[in-house]
Amino acid sequence: MNDNHFIRGRVPMTKSEIRAIVLSKLDLKKDSTVYDIGAGTGSVGIEAALSMRQGSVYAIEKKEEGCELIRRNQEALGAKNLTVVCGSAPEALTGLPVPDRVFIGGSGGRLAEILDLVREKNPQARAVITVIALETLAAVGGYLKDRRLEAEIVSVQVARAEKRGSYHLMQGQNPVYIITIPGMIQEKSCCI
Amino acid sequence: MNDNHFIRGRVPMTKSEIRAIVLSKLDLKKDSTVYDIGAGTGSVGIEAALSMRQGSVYAIEKKEEGCELIRRNQEALGAKNLTVVCGSAPEALTGLPVPDRVFIGGSGGRLAEILDLVREKNPQARAVITVIALETLAAVGGYLKDRRLEAEIVSVQVARAEKRGSYHLMQGQNPVYIITIPGMIQEKSCCI
Amino acid sequence: MNDNHFIRGRVPMTKSEIRAIVLSKLDLKKDSTVYDIGAGTGSVGIEAALSMRQGSVYAIEKKEEGCELIRRNQEALGAKNLTVVCGSAPEALTGLPVPDRVFIGGSGGRLAEILDLVREKNPQARAVITVIALETLAAVGGYLKDRRLEAEIVSVQVARAEKRGSYHLMQGQNPVYIITIPGMIQEKSCCI
Amino acid sequence: MNDNHFIRGRVPMTKSEIRAIVLSKLDLKKDSTVYDIGAGTGSVGIEAALSMRQGSVYAIEKKEEGCELIRRNQEALGAKNLTVVCGSAPEALTGLPVPDRVFIGGSGGRLAEILDLVREKNPQARAVITVIALETLAAVGGYLKDRRLEAEIVSVQVARAEKRGSYHLMQGQNPVYIITIPGMIQEKSCCI
Repeated sequence: MNDNHFIRGRVPMTKSEIRAIVLSKLDLKKDSTVYDIGAGTGSVGIEAALSMRQGSVYAIEKKEEGCELIRRNQEALGAKNLTVVCGSAPEALTGLPVPDRVFIGGSGGRLAEILDLVREKNPQARAVITVIALETLAAVGGYLKDRRLEAEIVSVQVARAEKRGSYHLMQGQNPVYIITIPGMIQEKSCCI
Repeated sequence: MNDNHFIRGRVPMTKSEIRAIVLSKLDLKKDSTVYDIGAGTGSVGIEAALSMRQGSVYAIEKKEEGCELIRRNQEALGAKNLTVVCGSAPEALTGLPVPDRVFIGGSGGRLAEILDLVREKNPQARAVITVIALETLAAVGGYLKDRRLEAEIVSVQVARAEKRGSYHLMQGQNPVYIITIPGMIQEKSCCI
Repeated sequence: MNDNHFIRGRVPMTKSEIRAIVLSKLDLKKDSTVYDIGAGTGSVGIEAALSMRQGSVYAIEKKEEGCELIRRNQEALGAKNLTVVCGSAPEALTGLPVPDRVFIGGSGGRLAEILDLVREKNPQARAVITVIALETLAAVGGYLKDRRLEAEIVSVQVARAEKRGSYHLMQGQNPVYIITIPGMIQEKSCCI
Repeated sequence: MNDNHFIRGRVPMTKSEIRAIVLSKLDLKKDSTVYDIGAGTGSVGIEAALSMRQGSVYAIEKKEEGCELIRRNQEALGAKNLTVVCGSAPEALTGLPVPDRVFIGGSGGRLAEILDLVREKNPQARAVITVIALETLAAVGGYLKDRRLEAEIVSVQVARAEKRGSYHLMQGQNPVYIITIPGMIQEKSCCI
């Protein structure tokens, strides 16, 4: 989906190219139960919801401004199978249905706790995490090592042409790491 | 879709991250008629076909080895709404149904002719082109200028972690330009 | 040299990482005669001048604001062997000494004329060009093809960590193409 | 310096673009004492040595094959002010003269010990580190945090055109992180 389908306000949004890759890595089933943690504008969760007829999405966001934005985007785009959960993960996840797909776009520094709770709920859950801070990248690496999990790790750097007069100048976007954990408990010689 | 769902042989394949972005830029309708020109392994066309229940995809490929590979991938993945057209574009496109979505992954140096034929068939067709050669990038730029078309141009550079002992080393993939032409005839102050 | 050694004003500056690569590609001799065309803040020319005791640099810049900035940077950094030439290339190059090294950071859309004049002055001159616009990249490609020249072409994308609280966020810079033409007239099976 | 000035064997080499940036970040004085730790082919140390008339470089390399290669490159390029130290850091550093510039291209997993020894020898030493493994990037981040040091962190991704017939295809190189620590003990509100 094009970025301009979403109302943004001042909330950071996963850009369309990264969102497309994330959704591909999530490998949604037609009836998946998805958590979108640190949902921001809700763009990932909403596009996921719109692509699954029988699935359901829980968009978890701690900032009230973000929650309001997600609700407005949800309504504008008709994503009825999405529920906004306004609160902080992992606490806000406790009462929610068991997920089989989890996207983490923001973790408030509590990534390990969140992933551990997901693992407790469903050891087969597939998790996709986007990371822009080096400290979070290190935290993901530490978690994978501690829990003996294998993951696919890619970094993606997009540049976008902007027109200035008759010239197209390439403008660099921020690089993003995308980590895909195919399951929270793994056999040896796993992966991807 | 994960790359390892596809049989590749020695034919170059659009990698999963780029394919996900291309499919997002194509903005398929549920009943689109899609050309996948220079289809290679057929990965873009097949993933498009699988995502549209009522749509149809024509995968055009000039190399016999590629055509055979597309057929094998099509069968293995159950993409019944895809037709392999073994021949060179633009000639091979002549008798095909009018498209509303066109992906060009390879043009054999005949990009302008192909785009002109698409325009003749359907001025509202949306085209997405992937480019890895500087000469092709220049050809796309020249075509857009000649036909007074606006397009979105992004470049995407992916790196992928490979495990060596206990280390993850990031391996650079080749950068790809992705050009999206939202329509082959445009109003002024168009675009995207 | 660190970017903050230079006064910038509102004039675009080749960033330190790109400048370091450009200077490496220029492969200066200790007594080279260098043109820095489209000099902007003069950062490339000044760093070149400071690294050569017996060489001389001509910084060509068409905007008065830029010329003033180059003079101020030159004075602040003590680059006595640099001459500011305030005017447009190629005209402004006519009376200057024959160069053996040429850097083009901006060409005002007249790249072919500039390179042809350099070739006339010294067929062995080595030229390094930085490009951020797709149209200029196409123009370079066209020139190389027309004149049957081989060149080394690299693209460089830098991201820089910015601190936000206790996190380092990687911020993408704009990608730059760096083209190195080792000589303006070449033997067959040339190059680099 | 162009990469093909160096004999490589099967030893990994810092490519010319990265080497140019590293040398710029090192900010050598004309009489610096430099350690090149994990020297590989010696390319960084040799280019540093050749650029300083009165300085000296110690190239530390643990593999015998590498040491031999450095000696051959040193001889071929005439870098007399470079000493090959065949052994593992930090032990191999003990008896060496106090450095004011340190480059670490490889640390054998002992980065913190090496940096601590450098700090002990000269708290004002400037260190530049290249990193390609995510685990090493995390180790650098952890060290900086533990020792309360600020550093400049950039990532650089280069792509290089390769000619195939009449086309130039951009080939992605591996992304490299370059970390610059301007001093091993820092005032508050330091840096760069």
